[in-house]
Amino acid sequence: MPRLEGPSVDELTIAIWGVGLIGGSLGMGWRAVAPRLRILGVDRPAVLDRAVARGAIDLPATPDQAIEVAQLHVLAAPVGVILQLADEIGARLPPGAVVTDVGSTKARIVERWNQRLAPGASFVGGHPMFGREIAGIDAADPGLVQGAYWFLTPGPRSAPAAVGLVQRVVGLLRPRLVLCDPAEHDDWVAQVSHLPQAVASALAASVAGAPALRYAGRGFTDTTRLAASPADIWTDIFRTNRSAVLAALDAFQGALQELRSAIESGDEAAVSTLFERAQSAVRRG
Amino acid sequence: MPRLEGPSVDELTIAIWGVGLIGGSLGMGWRAVAPRLRILGVDRPAVLDRAVARGAIDLPATPDQAIEVAQLHVLAAPVGVILQLADEIGARLPPGAVVTDVGSTKARIVERWNQRLAPGASFVGGHPMFGREIAGIDAADPGLVQGAYWFLTPGPRSAPAAVGLVQRVVGLLRPRLVLCDPAEHDDWVAQVSHLPQAVASALAASVAGAPALRYAGRGFTDTTRLAASPADIWTDIFRTNRSAVLAALDAFQGALQELRSAIESGDEAAVSTLFERAQSAVRRG
Repeated sequence: MPRLEGPSVDELTIAIWGVGLIGGSLGMGWRAVAPRLRILGVDRPAVLDRAVARGAIDLPATPDQAIEVAQLHVLAAPVGVILQLADEIGARLPPGAVVTDVGSTKARIVERWNQRLAPGASFVGGHPMFGREIAGIDAADPGLVQGAYWFLTPGPRSAPAAVGLVQRVVGLLRPRLVLCDPAEHDDWVAQVSHLPQAVASALAASVAGAPALRYAGRGFTDTTRLAASPADIWTDIFRTNRSAVLAALDAFQGALQELRSAIESGDEAAVSTLFERAQSAVRRG
Repeated sequence: MPRLEGPSVDELTIAIWGVGLIGGSLGMGWRAVAPRLRILGVDRPAVLDRAVARGAIDLPATPDQAIEVAQLHVLAAPVGVILQLADEIGARLPPGAVVTDVGSTKARIVERWNQRLAPGASFVGGHPMFGREIAGIDAADPGLVQGAYWFLTPGPRSAPAAVGLVQRVVGLLRPRLVLCDPAEHDDWVAQVSHLPQAVASALAASVAGAPALRYAGRGFTDTTRLAASPADIWTDIFRTNRSAVLAALDAFQGALQELRSAIESGDEAAVSTLFERAQSAVRRG
């Protein structure tokens, strides 16, 4: 088995588990900036064919091959699959192997992987904050990564050398790296990612089938763009970040009720106050 | 006073009352496609200077001058100002004068103008469905009009010739014209315009000041883009379309509560069902 301290970063073998929108974008990005990296893809055969055709991976691999030859495993699957992989491959990884993931919630994933991981292997939780409302290898785009926030949540099962390796390999793609605690991460993304998704989906659902939809303009389209997101990814996210999502929903429902009451009673000062608070949140940066 | 049946459409004198984002965009559009139209602007002097500089109007005018020489009056002001103008100038318009407006709600405006309008003058309610989250003449852009829906709500005070004139002049800008009833219009825009605004503002307000905002990505930015809209325009809209907005909010709050309950109880089938309904609303056309 190749050793972590053996090859330099740009000669590593990386296995991307799940070569969809995220995994495909990462593979394309790494192959463009570091051609000596060897990128394996683990996925269904039809997806791997597309991944090779799009230049996202060098070679298809079976799970056994990936476990045998890769020094770095990047789990680019929905949260539910990342959790399953802990059970299926965690104990089989050789000493020195490094695992990171791209799951949208971190506390549950880090907890499960810390329990299942073989001795001598390392897990470094990760979450690159990019995406699109469409999924799959054909939607992959390496340009999405540059400048995007990428959270890493190292913990007791992350050897310092493993954290350094993940930082260097991820850093090749020029995201904005943020190291934080898994629970802190989950609160943050509940507010700026999971809450907007829930709101956009509820908004679109509330007008589904209405004749008025034909007159929808850019305001409606932008506000509901996220509603096109695949449900299976989001059932995983809501399930594994339930309490933080419910807390964010509490705050939103409170603000909405405040606005509704102001509209109902014709309290224009209260409408303005809420609008000003809202403007302060979107004027940042 | 020039007569309606006098000049051909492209030799009309048009007074734009309020040369901001909407009025400025219309003036720029008309001057580009029909140079023989004479476009007057009525607004504060500083705005009129900018409007001339940007090519949105030919000449500044006082209210008295506009009333005297314009055959067509386009009220491009916030809803509250359009209502005030009915009291201030409605009775002073000469026979044959035609008034249209761009107000975002129609029933209250049409009712008030029908009451105040001088005999022999016509009012044809209108609403071009374009805009931006920023206001003012410097944000004007004639490209916004083309292909946008433009509602006209003719009624008992709209002479057929006046409706024809407004259709021809508005048609020069190539919007998608829709003739409908004011109440029907107000229900439609409550669903696809006023509801998204309320939701975007409440969403942004609910996370104002949160440290997580620094990690907001495109999903949050798009979903809350409308929250930058000026409060004064929206207090008018909510006040003059209260019952339709509250009905749209009822439907939204119901859908959100449905999603929340599904998340809370871990009912993934119910989450998926709501997501599918939402997808059907954003997949159209």
